[in-house]
Amino acid sequence: AFSGTVAAAVYMSLKPYMDKKDQKDQLVNLRIQKESSKVVNMADIEDLGNKVCYCRCWRSKKFPLCDGSHAKHNEDTGDNVGPLVLKRKDV
Amino acid sequence: AFSGTVAAAVYMSLKPYMDKKDQKDQLVNLRIQKESSKVVNMADIEDLGNKVCYCRCWRSKKFPLCDGSHAKHNEDTGDNVGPLVLKRKDV
Ligand code: FES
Ligand code: FES
Repeated sequence: AFSGTVAAAVYMSLKPYMDKKDQKDQLVNLRIQKESSKVVNMADIEDLGNKVCYCRCWRSKKFPLCDGSHAKHNEDTGDNVGPLVLKRKDV
Repeated sequence: AFSGTVAAAVYMSLKPYMDKKDQKDQLVNLRIQKESSKVVNMADIEDLGNKVCYCRCWRSKKFPLCDGSHAKHNEDTGDNVGPLVLKRKDV
């Protein structure tokens, strides 16, 4: 019974790490430009304006810009992704 | 036999759409700041320099910057994600 308790304790302490390792690397982008071998977006820094949010969840209907769709993705999956926000200091 | 052929043709024409719908929305970010409820990064436009690449695959060891890790992720999974590249026109 004692060795069973020890085994259970060891298992419970290791489980979070095993779970993390078990998460397979899967598709990040389900729908955007799937005919392209690699979706790279370019922007000129001079043209960025005062503030812009870029999508990093690949769920935005306005990709490459963020439209807030990360919120539903995070809620549906338990994920924690969000945009890259670029802004001018003086605004 | 004819209706079987028709059924097969219909099935084959719809299969790509069914496959797409079957792809479950899963975690995009497996490891970065998982203690945070939403990972948002901010940058000042004035400080961007001449060229910078931001990661959108969430696999970079230099996140939020791209370190090229998207290549292995794409190869391992068949995905097609890549960075956001910001650059000045005059360089
Ligand atoms: S919609 Fe993708 S990060 Fe906001
Ligand atoms: S390392 Fe993530 S996009 Fe390049």
